[in-house]
Amino acid sequence: MINVKIIGCGGYGGLGLVELLLRHPQAKLQTLVAATETGMPMSDLYPHLKGFCDLPILPPDHPDAQAPADIVFFSTPDGVGQRGAAAELAKGSKVIDFSGDFRFNSADTYAEYARRIGKDPVHKAPELLPETVYGLPELNRAAYRPGQRLVGNPGCFAMSCLLGLAPAARANLVDPASLICDCKTGVSGAGKKPSPGHHYPARYENMGAYRLSGHQHVMEVEHLLGVLAGEPMPVTFTAQVVPVTRGILSSLYGTLRPGVTEDDVRAAYHAAYDAEPFIRLFDRTAAIGTAHVRGSNFCNLIVDVDERTRRLRVISHIDNLMKGQAGNAVQNMNLLFGLPETLGLDHPGAYP
Amino acid sequence: MINVKIIGCGGYGGLGLVELLLRHPQAKLQTLVAATETGMPMSDLYPHLKGFCDLPILPPDHPDAQAPADIVFFSTPDGVGQRGAAAELAKGSKVIDFSGDFRFNSADTYAEYARRIGKDPVHKAPELLPETVYGLPELNRAAYRPGQRLVGNPGCFAMSCLLGLAPAARANLVDPASLICDCKTGVSGAGKKPSPGHHYPARYENMGAYRLSGHQHVMEVEHLLGVLAGEPMPVTFTAQVVPVTRGILSSLYGTLRPGVTEDDVRAAYHAAYDAEPFIRLFDRTAAIGTAHVRGSNFCNLIVDVDERTRRLRVISHIDNLMKGQAGNAVQNMNLLFGLPETLGLDHPGAYP
Amino acid sequence: MINVKIIGCGGYGGLGLVELLLRHPQAKLQTLVAATETGMPMSDLYPHLKGFCDLPILPPDHPDAQAPADIVFFSTPDGVGQRGAAAELAKGSKVIDFSGDFRFNSADTYAEYARRIGKDPVHKAPELLPETVYGLPELNRAAYRPGQRLVGNPGCFAMSCLLGLAPAARANLVDPASLICDCKTGVSGAGKKPSPGHHYPARYENMGAYRLSGHQHVMEVEHLLGVLAGEPMPVTFTAQVVPVTRGILSSLYGTLRPGVTEDDVRAAYHAAYDAEPFIRLFDRTAAIGTAHVRGSNFCNLIVDVDERTRRLRVISHIDNLMKGQAGNAVQNMNLLFGLPETLGLDHPGAYP
Amino acid sequence: MINVKIIGCGGYGGLGLVELLLRHPQAKLQTLVAATETGMPMSDLYPHLKGFCDLPILPPDHPDAQAPADIVFFSTPDGVGQRGAAAELAKGSKVIDFSGDFRFNSADTYAEYARRIGKDPVHKAPELLPETVYGLPELNRAAYRPGQRLVGNPGCFAMSCLLGLAPAARANLVDPASLICDCKTGVSGAGKKPSPGHHYPARYENMGAYRLSGHQHVMEVEHLLGVLAGEPMPVTFTAQVVPVTRGILSSLYGTLRPGVTEDDVRAAYHAAYDAEPFIRLFDRTAAIGTAHVRGSNFCNLIVDVDERTRRLRVISHIDNLMKGQAGNAVQNMNLLFGLPETLGLDHPGAYP
Repeated sequence: MINVKIIGCGGYGGLGLVELLLRHPQAKLQTLVAATETGMPMSDLYPHLKGFCDLPILPPDHPDAQAPADIVFFSTPDGVGQRGAAAELAKGSKVIDFSGDFRFNSADTYAEYARRIGKDPVHKAPELLPETVYGLPELNRAAYRPGQRLVGNPGCFAMSCLLGLAPAARANLVDPASLICDCKTGVSGAGKKPSPGHHYPARYENMGAYRLSGHQHVMEVEHLLGVLAGEPMPVTFTAQVVPVTRGILSSLYGTLRPGVTEDDVRAAYHAAYDAEPFIRLFDRTAAIGTAHVRGSNFCNLIVDVDERTRRLRVISHIDNLMKGQAGNAVQNMNLLFGLPETLGLDHPGAYP
Repeated sequence: MINVKIIGCGGYGGLGLVELLLRHPQAKLQTLVAATETGMPMSDLYPHLKGFCDLPILPPDHPDAQAPADIVFFSTPDGVGQRGAAAELAKGSKVIDFSGDFRFNSADTYAEYARRIGKDPVHKAPELLPETVYGLPELNRAAYRPGQRLVGNPGCFAMSCLLGLAPAARANLVDPASLICDCKTGVSGAGKKPSPGHHYPARYENMGAYRLSGHQHVMEVEHLLGVLAGEPMPVTFTAQVVPVTRGILSSLYGTLRPGVTEDDVRAAYHAAYDAEPFIRLFDRTAAIGTAHVRGSNFCNLIVDVDERTRRLRVISHIDNLMKGQAGNAVQNMNLLFGLPETLGLDHPGAYP
Repeated sequence: MINVKIIGCGGYGGLGLVELLLRHPQAKLQTLVAATETGMPMSDLYPHLKGFCDLPILPPDHPDAQAPADIVFFSTPDGVGQRGAAAELAKGSKVIDFSGDFRFNSADTYAEYARRIGKDPVHKAPELLPETVYGLPELNRAAYRPGQRLVGNPGCFAMSCLLGLAPAARANLVDPASLICDCKTGVSGAGKKPSPGHHYPARYENMGAYRLSGHQHVMEVEHLLGVLAGEPMPVTFTAQVVPVTRGILSSLYGTLRPGVTEDDVRAAYHAAYDAEPFIRLFDRTAAIGTAHVRGSNFCNLIVDVDERTRRLRVISHIDNLMKGQAGNAVQNMNLLFGLPETLGLDHPGAYP
Repeated sequence: MINVKIIGCGGYGGLGLVELLLRHPQAKLQTLVAATETGMPMSDLYPHLKGFCDLPILPPDHPDAQAPADIVFFSTPDGVGQRGAAAELAKGSKVIDFSGDFRFNSADTYAEYARRIGKDPVHKAPELLPETVYGLPELNRAAYRPGQRLVGNPGCFAMSCLLGLAPAARANLVDPASLICDCKTGVSGAGKKPSPGHHYPARYENMGAYRLSGHQHVMEVEHLLGVLAGEPMPVTFTAQVVPVTRGILSSLYGTLRPGVTEDDVRAAYHAAYDAEPFIRLFDRTAAIGTAHVRGSNFCNLIVDVDERTRRLRVISHIDNLMKGQAGNAVQNMNLLFGLPETLGLDHPGAYP
């Protein structure tokens, strides 16, 4: 069994891990750590877990919080993982971090990321950056090395965009200056902390754009697309929030290069994804929405070409708390431990 | 493996069974039958099942629909099971019916039920009634006989009321003329068929009472409570619908008999439920709601006494599609096949 | 024109007044005061008001906040109005308070109320209590004196219960020991301040009971019902919250006294309400819900008798922010100034 | 007073007119006509109107349905207005049609529109097309002639896109081949008829794209933008539905032509809209959403430039049932009768 420690267990990311790992045949929850709401059992914070996960929530400085584990998830904001990862790795643990801390392989790239989002550009564990991997197996599996021990779990918006655009980028199907990502997220993407904008009466019946001046996930999208395409791929990115709890719907646009046909497009996507267990391709007449990935680790894609305007249009659907976060993290854990990637994730969610 | 046939697979009851049985270690989905939307794979009707359940939906008269199974679920309206059960039993199957058809052991009681709800009072398979069992294991486990092959799965509202009131009835704690069940259900309780009242714009921001002249689940509540109490237990029952998809919240009231104390009440409920795997008791200060049973087979109960008015007040929470329907049906299946009741059901649901 | 000052303009109560008074032909918004979010225009806090109400939100100690007005609304929590009302009255203003501060006519009754809800039992302006009036015109219009200058606007739950039960109490139709109020509110009833329980992901798909140990509105219900009935009328009261923003649905129960008929019940309710502009009676087959009072000052009542159990059952529907708060307050203002009670309130709301 | 007849009163468009005209100081509801749910009072169909609009719903062939009115609204699907308008005009009425029937001035353009959406391309009243006007006053006021008697009220999506892009088109700020309209609508845009996709359990927690193969509103967007720009302006258009009842959020993109600055953009929008009573411009840091136009006739625009990618991005917010339909229609009525455009519309809606 894989012994698991979760740092930041009290948020939706940590909760998602707990729910998934309770049903995972090879994992055992061992240690739960958080900065707030400590001292109580996890099931006091989340009463549906009563009888399933009554482990105490330990403060970071509690002696039991230091116990080594086979894997440590940092389900924490930017800045926490880079301070704590080295110590956990030194105990022999593997580490998967949910923030931007380990999504880039160089201190320079990190510094640019941090500057864009107004954070301290100096990484606190630059020596670890060369060995981290951007944890999107479908696009980046080849970059996981034997013995890989550190993963930067991607941003939720970023995954929805990257999975939707990567085959087009890799096959150079679209004009690199033409990309637009119009993304809508459910409210859980903002985390569990109450705020005026997500108070129920303020959020129901209310959809709108936010962070128009720049979202923290843009850079990792541009970075990986650029690598795949072999040339810079800037994107215009719009983050929007709608009154659902789970789900990201990303509408992705790019102008087809001259000569590229709809058949070329379909071929590229099928080649990229037909063997992927968590990607399903749908045709533009399919009556699907985010409800059809809710609670599952799937990314459902509608790959479409608007013939009149010669634009590629991909509609990408994920559950932001699953493929967008904890589900993808468990997929990463499986990969790190040589297990089938689908272990504990091989289910369709619940509907309605 | 238990081979499973579902008749009425296209509704939410059938879908719930499919989702649960896909993850059940001892069950195998074999045959799906429905009266409408036939000919397509189940995953065309419910796209989240793509790759998980692509079985065809067969019309009832299709030859393959006649194949015997170890268990047949009739997830169908009143009147279907009583016409089809005998044939399935004759093939050696066990049968669990989701309607009122097999909730009573005598044709007379059934006739009274049918009359109350304006249906034909003549049961079509009266010879089966003596052997059927009211399928609420927590209250009625003793009534399941060795080799039990027929179960009437209770109504969702009825389960929420019975689980909440049974210990008080059995211990004769409340005045039998004082019972009130104020019940609120999510919209999925009305099934998947569109209707003007459950069209999204008509239902959002709208809660109200319905069927004030009499709800079909009242009689089974009164019947079992009466049996447990040894005297008639009439209930005033109010069905209400609120804009959630899953969940029943029932507030249950009864006036304490003279001399009954709050301690007597707590003792009765603990005695009844401490060993039950799917019942959790909470205290009146617990911040719980229907979200905490969503997707799980639990019934969470707050057992309270209003001292000023000497009234027992029980707040009962279930997921109407789980403990209120498919989850309870799988629990019944486990019981019929000698498996642990919790098999395939031992999880807390997903939150948020 | 009636010059209006609103103290506590930033909450939903104050906002409701602003919206109603903007369209009121005899009122003029003059001064807005709040304890937080001061210094900005009201339309920065509520952007839909841009161009309609750009008045600054003044802190209570700002000189302009002291300006006299024809009427001052205290849309503030318990304890604020009793400290500030005397000064406003001394300037010649009339005062309508939204809290429990002026809902009782004696310091003793207030003390009992305050004790029940855990507040300081010593009223800060006991000399004003003899002249205040419980501001529910439909039931209490006779108590408003000529020159009435002080009104305690009732609690939202209390109004929904009182309007539903008063005719039965007044006509002594029900056993006084039998009353149960099962009340469900929308989330706006908890105000605009974010909290973990009303964070969108925590509240959607979640209904539950709260404050089971005692709700602050119970006492005013019992008090007025007792006065109307001429004997004590204790109530068992259950507060529940459901994921809608606006609306209270109260299901009210009482056992009919021997000999009382359904005709007696109907006669009592028609006598009480046929001339009331804001009360509409519906029959138990009406397909109505809280959506049909949303945005309006109406209370819609279904008056029903459950013949099997001889119980009166009234389903009461209001918009908690309108008849439950700001709408009723404007009705009170109209009454104090000798205007038609319906002025500025004579509209049906918006649907869907 | 303007006597009003509404044909198609039973849908959300007709209902919106009824609600607005009840409060309009110069209009009087006279005749309500519909093809279904006839014979009952309007207030039976919509109980919130009880006491406000109890007019009978007449079938089209009822003698009273033929009565002349000062204005006739056809709140009906494509094909109805073009069959009925001539008769109403002949009685001296003015006509405002809600469908695509009168949005184009030539039979050829209409035929192209009809073909795109799979309808009969032969217009039934081609003689009326030269005199109709595309009813978007903010962009097309100059085209209303003295005595104008026929108006094609625009499509809801079209209005949200046109109001957002017109100033850029008119000032030739963007590359004409670069336009993308990513549009999200609330469910009421699909009308009041129940359907599987908008059944509450299917629609809550579900956002998705639809009609990817072509939406009926695209052509009128391209048509007017082309006229304003003096060159063809093709758009890639994506319709999406999200679980809110009211609201359209359109994110509109275009690549700035070389040399165009952010100041040029702001100047163009201010010039176009500063004098418009129903357009409000917001800056990209404003925390606004569709809730802030809910129930009002406003279009709120965030006009933004993404400097990194040199793209114009406009976020356009309307209430699809108000500025997107009935509100704009009343604005048109005011214009036809020489009244201030804001009459009966000069209010901010209700929040929350």
